[in-house]
Amino acid sequence: MTAAAPQATDRRSPAPSPAASAVERLTALLADDMAAVNGEILARMDSPVALIPQLARYIVASGGKRLRPLLTLAAARLCGYGGEDHVRLAAAVEFIHTATLLHDDVVDESGMRRGKASANEVFGNEASVLVGDFLFARSFQLMVATRSVEVLRILSNAAAVIAEGEVLQLSIRNDISATEPAYLQVVEAKTAALFAAACEVGPVVADRPAGEAAAFKDYGLNLGIAFQIIDDVLDYSAHQATLGKAVGDDFREGKLTLPVILALRGADATAAVEERAFWARVMESPDRQADGDLDHAMALIKRHGALEASVSRAWDYAAKARAALGCFAPGELREILLDTVDAAVDRAY
Amino acid sequence: MTAAAPQATDRRSPAPSPAASAVERLTALLADDMAAVNGEILARMDSPVALIPQLARYIVASGGKRLRPLLTLAAARLCGYGGEDHVRLAAAVEFIHTATLLHDDVVDESGMRRGKASANEVFGNEASVLVGDFLFARSFQLMVATRSVEVLRILSNAAAVIAEGEVLQLSIRNDISATEPAYLQVVEAKTAALFAAACEVGPVVADRPAGEAAAFKDYGLNLGIAFQIIDDVLDYSAHQATLGKAVGDDFREGKLTLPVILALRGADATAAVEERAFWARVMESPDRQADGDLDHAMALIKRHGALEASVSRAWDYAAKARAALGCFAPGELREILLDTVDAAVDRAY
Repeated sequence: MTAAAPQATDRRSPAPSPAASAVERLTALLADDMAAVNGEILARMDSPVALIPQLARYIVASGGKRLRPLLTLAAARLCGYGGEDHVRLAAAVEFIHTATLLHDDVVDESGMRRGKASANEVFGNEASVLVGDFLFARSFQLMVATRSVEVLRILSNAAAVIAEGEVLQLSIRNDISATEPAYLQVVEAKTAALFAAACEVGPVVADRPAGEAAAFKDYGLNLGIAFQIIDDVLDYSAHQATLGKAVGDDFREGKLTLPVILALRGADATAAVEERAFWARVMESPDRQADGDLDHAMALIKRHGALEASVSRAWDYAAKARAALGCFAPGELREILLDTVDAAVDRAY
Repeated sequence: MTAAAPQATDRRSPAPSPAASAVERLTALLADDMAAVNGEILARMDSPVALIPQLARYIVASGGKRLRPLLTLAAARLCGYGGEDHVRLAAAVEFIHTATLLHDDVVDESGMRRGKASANEVFGNEASVLVGDFLFARSFQLMVATRSVEVLRILSNAAAVIAEGEVLQLSIRNDISATEPAYLQVVEAKTAALFAAACEVGPVVADRPAGEAAAFKDYGLNLGIAFQIIDDVLDYSAHQATLGKAVGDDFREGKLTLPVILALRGADATAAVEERAFWARVMESPDRQADGDLDHAMALIKRHGALEASVSRAWDYAAKARAALGCFAPGELREILLDTVDAAVDRAY
């Protein structure tokens, strides 16, 4: 179920080389737990209605690093949890994330995700909406299986905040007057809230004091903000483009992300009227974008140092995330969680 | 918050005339509870993201009879419940229903609901998907407020079954080989499961024995099936058409509902090959329907007595629903719940 390399790792052997990414080390350290999570995910996406497992398998198999469930497992383990409920919660968190992706792609009219055709492109928008609803319901069934009202409180709150963040993002799309605080509000709601909840339920299921839950929530929230800022940076990254990875998705949808907001601020500071006019044209009416517009956007973003400034913001949040784990005793798992923060931002280089 | 007439009713006065519909009598009897439910609904649909209350108010205000929350309140009261949690649960049930309607309209590409422009027509599909997600999350927050894991189990199971039913309906849309059992499976999942859960949580929140919860679940399930069959009958009802109400919505989407399935069976029984060819054309490719096709469909349905046969099926389920309440002592509220069953089927005339 997990990738071959981590499965082969002997958990009692010395830690993998520092070159191995933090997420790979986390996956290796938690290999047994992750195998259980993958089993739970496969079992719970099943349904007598054949289209449901077909579509669910398509999007779940299309992968990603399963960072959110890893965080749930790690938080529970760092808090000394020895039961099984963290596996259910990790699967629940991944289902909420997957449901959100399915609905996101419908909302954004995306044709691609992670380099292959998106589920709505293959199965239609109708099925993507409904299977998203199914996975969302399944995530609550998984939480119910833990019998913890506190866990249900944390994750239902997160689900409401995520939906609010998505609607807010919709409201400020194509709006070049969007500010950095508004952007951060969207990021905190649509991305960081689930990171925070995924981490917070670890100490809660381990029945640890409220202070540890608050610390892990703080860790997840700041890690999530840093993570999303870097995601938004990568969408305009020349380095990313040279690796053959997709760039310009946000640009083509007219999403006002931090690099654009900072480039606009730079344009205003230098009284570059024609730059503001360019951004107004391409962001407010993305369907009228022409060849060369993305290159020009990337050049403007570079001119104003907007990527570096965005990464610098991400490092600020990364520092907060690292500081949040200060109340836990040093050890291998805590070390990897700290490295995970750095790795999330290091992706930008 | 409630309609003027029910609010004015003095609950200690004699029951309204028998001519008043059962749902109106239920609304009158539970007027205080329903006012509290409406207050909870308004409070919980609020959000700092302005588009959310705008869209939510649009669809919630567009009304309906609030039958599902009424059932939750009535079930709790009949079981002697004296607390406040039934109000939260009634609001949660209505939110699940509303979220489903929002997503349904996106899936069906509906332009109208209850005689006015549907929310997706006014606010866009994106907002309808996301506000549906928000209301769904809110419904779980309301359940969490009751601190009852059993309630969360019942309603999260219902939510998963509803989504399965919707996907199943999608799978058999435009498929003229759809059978009556397949149709009933869709109806039970997409409609009756929420009726059943709405009723079952009443005895559960009242902390009554499992037998009463099972009885109310049975009542709700069978009432829900009868209710949906009649909804599907009304879509082909000449009587409905003379009242100026919409007919033919299911027809235009190529949905295989019971009247069509029974008309197809009649066509086969009389070896009417051209009738089967007609249904194949209009159901499999509804975008190629022509003027007069709906009239012809209604004539074929009439020829085979398919509406009467459908209504007869609905009466069978209605009888089961009535029988389910046999374990409760006679009284005004039980009487109205029994009449509600008859009223659900009587709509067909």
